[in-house]
Amino acid sequence: MAPAGAKRNILERLDAGEIVIGDGGFVFALEKRGYVKAGPWTPEAAAEHPEAVRQLHREFLRAGSNVMQTFTFYASDDKLENRGNAQRFTGAQINEAACDLAREVANEGDAMVAGGVSQTPSYLSCKSEAEVKGIFKRQLNVFVKKNVDFMIAEYFEHVEEAEWAVQVLKTSGKPVCASLCIGPDGDLNGVSPGDCAVRLVKAGANIVGINCHFDPMICVKTVKMMKEGVERAGLKAHYMVQPLAYHTPDCNCQGFIDLPEFPFGLEPRIMTRWDMHKYAREAFNVGIRFIGGCCGFEPYHIRAVAEELATERGYLPAASVKHGNWGAGLEMHTKPWVRARARRDYWEKLKPASGRPKCPAMSTPDSWGVTKGHADLMQHKEATSLDELKPLFEKAKC
Amino acid sequence: MAPAGAKRNILERLDAGEIVIGDGGFVFALEKRGYVKAGPWTPEAAAEHPEAVRQLHREFLRAGSNVMQTFTFYASDDKLENRGNAQRFTGAQINEAACDLAREVANEGDAMVAGGVSQTPSYLSCKSEAEVKGIFKRQLNVFVKKNVDFMIAEYFEHVEEAEWAVQVLKTSGKPVCASLCIGPDGDLNGVSPGDCAVRLVKAGANIVGINCHFDPMICVKTVKMMKEGVERAGLKAHYMVQPLAYHTPDCNCQGFIDLPEFPFGLEPRIMTRWDMHKYAREAFNVGIRFIGGCCGFEPYHIRAVAEELATERGYLPAASVKHGNWGAGLEMHTKPWVRARARRDYWEKLKPASGRPKCPAMSTPDSWGVTKGHADLMQHKEATSLDELKPLFEKAKC
Amino acid sequence: MAPAGAKRNILERLDAGEIVIGDGGFVFALEKRGYVKAGPWTPEAAAEHPEAVRQLHREFLRAGSNVMQTFTFYASDDKLENRGNAQRFTGAQINEAACDLAREVANEGDAMVAGGVSQTPSYLSCKSEAEVKGIFKRQLNVFVKKNVDFMIAEYFEHVEEAEWAVQVLKTSGKPVCASLCIGPDGDLNGVSPGDCAVRLVKAGANIVGINCHFDPMICVKTVKMMKEGVERAGLKAHYMVQPLAYHTPDCNCQGFIDLPEFPFGLEPRIMTRWDMHKYAREAFNVGIRFIGGCCGFEPYHIRAVAEELATERGYLPAASVKHGNWGAGLEMHTKPWVRARARRDYWEKLKPASGRPKCPAMSTPDSWGVTKGHADLMQHKEATSLDELKPLFEKAKC
Amino acid sequence: MAPAGAKRNILERLDAGEIVIGDGGFVFALEKRGYVKAGPWTPEAAAEHPEAVRQLHREFLRAGSNVMQTFTFYASDDKLENRGNAQRFTGAQINEAACDLAREVANEGDAMVAGGVSQTPSYLSCKSEAEVKGIFKRQLNVFVKKNVDFMIAEYFEHVEEAEWAVQVLKTSGKPVCASLCIGPDGDLNGVSPGDCAVRLVKAGANIVGINCHFDPMICVKTVKMMKEGVERAGLKAHYMVQPLAYHTPDCNCQGFIDLPEFPFGLEPRIMTRWDMHKYAREAFNVGIRFIGGCCGFEPYHIRAVAEELATERGYLPAASVKHGNWGAGLEMHTKPWVRARARRDYWEKLKPASGRPKCPAMSTPDSWGVTKGHADLMQHKEATSLDELKPLFEKAKC
Repeated sequence: MAPAGAKRNILERLDAGEIVIGDGGFVFALEKRGYVKAGPWTPEAAAEHPEAVRQLHREFLRAGSNVMQTFTFYASDDKLENRGNAQRFTGAQINEAACDLAREVANEGDAMVAGGVSQTPSYLSCKSEAEVKGIFKRQLNVFVKKNVDFMIAEYFEHVEEAEWAVQVLKTSGKPVCASLCIGPDGDLNGVSPGDCAVRLVKAGANIVGINCHFDPMICVKTVKMMKEGVERAGLKAHYMVQPLAYHTPDCNCQGFIDLPEFPFGLEPRIMTRWDMHKYAREAFNVGIRFIGGCCGFEPYHIRAVAEELATERGYLPAASVKHGNWGAGLEMHTKPWVRARARRDYWEKLKPASGRPKCPAMSTPDSWGVTKGHADLMQHKEATSLDELKPLFEKAKC
Repeated sequence: MAPAGAKRNILERLDAGEIVIGDGGFVFALEKRGYVKAGPWTPEAAAEHPEAVRQLHREFLRAGSNVMQTFTFYASDDKLENRGNAQRFTGAQINEAACDLAREVANEGDAMVAGGVSQTPSYLSCKSEAEVKGIFKRQLNVFVKKNVDFMIAEYFEHVEEAEWAVQVLKTSGKPVCASLCIGPDGDLNGVSPGDCAVRLVKAGANIVGINCHFDPMICVKTVKMMKEGVERAGLKAHYMVQPLAYHTPDCNCQGFIDLPEFPFGLEPRIMTRWDMHKYAREAFNVGIRFIGGCCGFEPYHIRAVAEELATERGYLPAASVKHGNWGAGLEMHTKPWVRARARRDYWEKLKPASGRPKCPAMSTPDSWGVTKGHADLMQHKEATSLDELKPLFEKAKC
Repeated sequence: MAPAGAKRNILERLDAGEIVIGDGGFVFALEKRGYVKAGPWTPEAAAEHPEAVRQLHREFLRAGSNVMQTFTFYASDDKLENRGNAQRFTGAQINEAACDLAREVANEGDAMVAGGVSQTPSYLSCKSEAEVKGIFKRQLNVFVKKNVDFMIAEYFEHVEEAEWAVQVLKTSGKPVCASLCIGPDGDLNGVSPGDCAVRLVKAGANIVGINCHFDPMICVKTVKMMKEGVERAGLKAHYMVQPLAYHTPDCNCQGFIDLPEFPFGLEPRIMTRWDMHKYAREAFNVGIRFIGGCCGFEPYHIRAVAEELATERGYLPAASVKHGNWGAGLEMHTKPWVRARARRDYWEKLKPASGRPKCPAMSTPDSWGVTKGHADLMQHKEATSLDELKPLFEKAKC
Repeated sequence: MAPAGAKRNILERLDAGEIVIGDGGFVFALEKRGYVKAGPWTPEAAAEHPEAVRQLHREFLRAGSNVMQTFTFYASDDKLENRGNAQRFTGAQINEAACDLAREVANEGDAMVAGGVSQTPSYLSCKSEAEVKGIFKRQLNVFVKKNVDFMIAEYFEHVEEAEWAVQVLKTSGKPVCASLCIGPDGDLNGVSPGDCAVRLVKAGANIVGINCHFDPMICVKTVKMMKEGVERAGLKAHYMVQPLAYHTPDCNCQGFIDLPEFPFGLEPRIMTRWDMHKYAREAFNVGIRFIGGCCGFEPYHIRAVAEELATERGYLPAASVKHGNWGAGLEMHTKPWVRARARRDYWEKLKPASGRPKCPAMSTPDSWGVTKGHADLMQHKEATSLDELKPLFEKAKC
């Protein structure tokens, strides 16, 4: 096995025109497998059940991922503490274990390790820039010690906090990605995607883009707006996208969190592998070259991305040995009418039924309509009384 | 760790009034993870990627399963051969590896190992009773050698073939379950669920029921019909159900295979954990005590079954440490309107949207309408021309 | 214009193998036009706004109807009184005016006049057979005086009351139709459609069938069951069907009254003209020869029935001069893609969207689940407290 | 009855702050009644079947309309000729008959007569301004001779043609309304709603707004954009809206014509009376005071508008005598659970089911994506070959 150092880094790969395929969202996948608790969403499984985390890394590697993100989402000290669980593991233990698992599996194939930080309760509680940066710095120390290949600051709703994260991560000397969880309407203070991207590039991000909160087509559209902003400003960057694997045409500006189905009733929205083909093609066409997934992505979704782009990449992922091209595996089915489904045209045109005639196609987001000023209000989150909070939210409606 | 022999067997447990929770469908779960090929659906992963199969066993154990079914679906020699892949492993290797994995994980908790056989191409090709029984006998030899705890003959569309399987499995002296993949309309020769059940009990089955092909409520209804048949005949049995985790109100008599979404567009039909609560309660109320799942079940679905029946069983499964009761994990969510979802009433009443406004709620099954006489026609399955086959099917329409 | 007497009566026409086309439901059509009040549904418009009733008769005549039903639904004295409105018109005035209007328009074309009676509050309140028959007799007196061509007893939920009505109507010497508003589950006392039909034929009905409460396909299916019952009994009859123009796959045994959309939210269920083609063909294939409509039918729905059966009848209705065959009128549309819709195949295959992504495809009927024993409970209808009534209904659940 | 001259004109009424309620779309309503042919959509019924047209006027008057629009849609000489039917009536005969009918019924109540012109084939075929204006002038001569109360230029897709129409109509000295059939994206040459409105006001229109092509909420939004444009330009006008009675969330910029359901499969999109309450309130809130309907509106839809605004107007329409407030007519229903529907809350919250589980909620518009340059291409409409036309359309895609 080649030592990690011999591999080209992500910027070299992107500069060379390669497509880099990301992985899927670990918190949702591991929640379904029984290792992450919905609500806190903390990643103690890295230390607690390493075999489960390792297995999921392997499945994504096998599906075609070139990036093993350390399972460190919400693993900042303030988050772990805020989520109230008396954890059996310290933040450092979790972060280190996550790095080791990612590295172990990355070394089994053609993958890089990315250390990740995400938005902090400290920022939402209006702590100072120094305090928030301190939080990121503590996580970065682990990533540097474990020598990850590059850094991702992801899942930020406010570009300001993402800028701070980028500034901290840049001190490592490693390539830095900055990914916001916003849609076409911009961040929660109303900064447009284009302006967000410009600020992130100026803060030092090499790769900018979008993850989570919206479905693939909305995310790709938002990254396109970021790219146009960067190009209008005469700057240069690479682009990434790691969307939900859920259809969310009915989201408001705050994304799927506000849908009534979040997080325990999202099943009917899960995308098929064929939806992922369309996503991968669209992302590629827009000029995005780091293409992955977030919440809802299972290994077969990433495989579909890799299969759609197999011609451009020059190879199929390992897991395609267990997958016929566009349903070809059905060619030997006993029933002739099932055999007739073994073709691209069939699956591309299928409009899959929900089997739920008493359910609607779209929901009304559940929020109190907050966007701008959201950050200010969120410091009140300790309040337990909805009645007490509601007037504040109403003042801030979009 | 207690030796397997010290455990009570499944009949002792059921006779004592216990609820035995089954596991979920391995072929679908492992297809999504990249280890099973849709179409052939063969279980070579047991030998090829044991770590992936072991991990899935562990997740179901953790979710509350008391039964580790050997991953031997479609592992009869004639099936492996018929599916055309030049396998790197013999049928014996696959069956033995599957037994070892199931035993290894069963011994980590409160679970029994069940060896499974399912319908054969030999029967559909009108081979003789002796030949078909020979197929089952070869698999049974492995199960006896590996000393599984009990036997399941499952996924049979014709009660006759299931009777033959039961007769073979009975020779082992172990408890035998017989599970058909039929709905309320009966088997593919039109034998009613009640009559099927009587025949299976008379053939020696200790536990009879339904698996696969239909959604939980349809399966429970069908087992109820079986139970009524058995009781009307003055016989006695235990009952099992292991349904799909998909909503299938639009199925015809042949189940989800004929839905246009099978197998690559079923996502919008996936049941939520709350659907599983209703299923578990209904199955319990009907008098079924071996309650599990089949295709589409993920570990969190089985956990929901175990959580619904926690009072009756007296304990929660291990994986409930990562799951708040009825969404309680959301109580600490930042947004007050998401916190408001941390209650049973909310999730019980939710009608989850599909996010797919251009898709329907129900499909028209794709079949040529065959039921009776299906077996006769199936021997023509080698024919490659649909035009050639169609008239034969049309003669046999239901 | 030929005098009414010179026309062949309905039995002569049916005996000769003719198709007789009915009209549509006046109460719903006139409610939308502003002349009938939903709730009471009484037909005082016949006396109050004769021009509106006459115009609707003319539209149905023009659309192909051979039957002008007198607009006397719910015009029995007990009903008019029970509905509480201090009417400006007596029952006799309304019934007579309705006869005159039907006759006036029938004489303008190839149509017969049918006098109609329907179920009475007296029956539901457990009045005696003599009292209930007296109600029918008073309406019949008007019909005899006005010399209608034949009689229809329609919209009965209990076959017993319909038998009484038939017995009264037979005394006129005119042909008598008996039409129940029940589905495949039978009348509200659980008498099967087949048994209902036999009883009605034995009571003297010449034509038996179904109207209202369910969609066309359910009604046709129910008439088929009636026909099979009559034939099994060695009897002979003609058959009629006058269904809703609403899709009601989600009805319980009491029909569309119990759907939450009744009566002010039924719009998304309205059938297209193409749905009516299918209905007309299916009714014809089953052997029904008196084919019309009830609530929801507009003139263009009846025209579609007449157009579907134009070959069998040998002519198109007058209103077809304003309707291209299968959309042919679009052939001269400005936009080529709209011109492309001028073909049968297009409209037959269309799955029309609701434009309502937040609405479901099916509802849960709103009833307390009453069927059997319904009649007994209905005498409590004067009770104003739901709480008081509920236990009674619960005892009577189906 | 007061002579028409004694009535205040529409500008006096609007200046006084009154709400003026329009009528509904005659072509669609009369198509369903059998008097208009879909495709040509011409109004010869005014001369051919005056009783049917008169009856519809009366129903709208009774429902609360203050405006009787002459049934002269598509009655310009070039349109009548272009539609190819050898008509039994000249354009003058049709226009004159339509004026007489509108006047007759207007005089029966509190209504004004509006003479209407709409877009011409001459414009789409690139005839000169003089030629197109000549077409409008010929219709205007009839309206002047018949002394209508005011003029409406409606259903224009290009603001330029509407300006020409306004300039012609202004010569009559009567108040002039100008109404486009566009959405928020502007006219088919891409002129924004705000700019369209400014141009129409400058051309002399007293009242500007939107009719047809989109659902009420989209139309109200577009009129709001027109109003903002007029106010930004420092101009002054009154505003009108006469939308579809169909839900069209899935329309492209060309409106409902391009939906696959147009015109024979729109039933599931028909709005309920409760949808109309919301529409009327929203239109009022935006500042629109001439509020009516177009295709799909039936008399009960207009009644709902009048009932919603009854407080502001100070009275209910005549037809409300046949309509309980918010379903109050159900209070005396036999079944208690139907009685429970007699309340505003129930109907406001109802999400009505389609009864069509195999149909989607939204469609994909059928167009070739044409907007800009549409006018140029439309002159090719005589071409019969789609293949010949398609490349031209593709060049002009939006």
